[in-house]
Amino acid sequence: MPAQPTAQSAPTKYTRTPTGFLMVLRQGDNVLQELEQLAVRENIPSASLTGLGFGHPTFGFWNAQTKTYAPKAFRDLELASLTGSIAWKDGKPALHLHGVGADKEFKPVGGHLLALEVGTGSVELTIVVHDQKLSRAEDPRNGATVLGVE
Amino acid sequence: MPAQPTAQSAPTKYTRTPTGFLMVLRQGDNVLQELEQLAVRENIPSASLTGLGFGHPTFGFWNAQTKTYAPKAFRDLELASLTGSIAWKDGKPALHLHGVGADKEFKPVGGHLLALEVGTGSVELTIVVHDQKLSRAEDPRNGATVLGVE
Amino acid sequence: MPAQPTAQSAPTKYTRTPTGFLMVLRQGDNVLQELEQLAVRENIPSASLTGLGFGHPTFGFWNAQTKTYAPKAFRDLELASLTGSIAWKDGKPALHLHGVGADKEFKPVGGHLLALEVGTGSVELTIVVHDQKLSRAEDPRNGATVLGVE
Repeated sequence: MPAQPTAQSAPTKYTRTPTGFLMVLRQGDNVLQELEQLAVRENIPSASLTGLGFGHPTFGFWNAQTKTYAPKAFRDLELASLTGSIAWKDGKPALHLHGVGADKEFKPVGGHLLALEVGTGSVELTIVVHDQKLSRAEDPRNGATVLGVE
Repeated sequence: MPAQPTAQSAPTKYTRTPTGFLMVLRQGDNVLQELEQLAVRENIPSASLTGLGFGHPTFGFWNAQTKTYAPKAFRDLELASLTGSIAWKDGKPALHLHGVGADKEFKPVGGHLLALEVGTGSVELTIVVHDQKLSRAEDPRNGATVLGVE
Repeated sequence: MPAQPTAQSAPTKYTRTPTGFLMVLRQGDNVLQELEQLAVRENIPSASLTGLGFGHPTFGFWNAQTKTYAPKAFRDLELASLTGSIAWKDGKPALHLHGVGADKEFKPVGGHLLALEVGTGSVELTIVVHDQKLSRAEDPRNGATVLGVE
């Protein structure tokens, strides 16, 4: 795990746009941590995001019986697609991030992202900010943590 | 097929955002039907959408010779990516929705979505609304139903 | 390679939206060229995009050692996802476009798009425009061309 950015260097990782933020992360950056820091620093009520890049994803498959994610780590994939959302749970940012990554044979893997480190390239994230503070809570029917819009 | 939501329960499935709507569907919901209901209820002229979730997609592959989609149904996939658009045809909402779903080995399938039911989790959809009413019409060169922006 | 659209026909390929542009390309259109023309004609400072469609993609896998993309061309794929960004380099539009395409067995390939021609259908692109002019430059650590947001 590379050294994390200091508070001083962090502001140069994103810029404000008419609809939210555009974030560009570089080799060694921890994507989920950077998004969580953005949510706190900019006091984002909730947001949706899309992205692309190159990196080392860890996917997890949701098992509704055990209520856990079975993880698997991959290295050096073109991140063909990233989609997700930012909300809050227990006073902290709660991300939901899915992706598709493809190897040098263009063969993809995909699913729910548990972790993602930027590889020898970048990750570009477009964050569209919403104006209502939204939270995640457990759906009693299946144990999944679900975004509330009520 | 689960019971469809009543008009009374439906408003709690989405919230308005500065750029459109954020919809969160839950176990058993019919994604295409919910989007069509949203288009009618909120009188959406046209829109683009992205999303993620967990569910049971039916994909169809477009055959320009027969002008049909060859369908195949899958169950319990992490929906790694959803992208689409909302427009109108013959006075009714006309959706175009593509997606990628991955199984517990993180192996994906993808393509044009003919149907999608939410599984043991949720589906989050970010809908960016446009201000012009747009329609779909057949492209005489290949029989495909194509969104018109003229 | 089909004949390219003339300047006269091009304006009918997209419409303005509250957040940017919605572009619909048709059989034979060159997706990257159309996006570059849009960037120049509409003087787009920078933008993010998502999309879907049907076409013939050429993917390239980034090799940080050789600083080149190993290309591979595919035909007749449902474009399950397209994500990207528009910026500038040396006074010209500089695109970054990733995608996932799936064949008639719904089996996907994906990665960084070097080229994309529309097939027997369409490609729909939603372009969210930002207000700052952004440029790409080489990251000296890995040779990748990276979007600058500083």
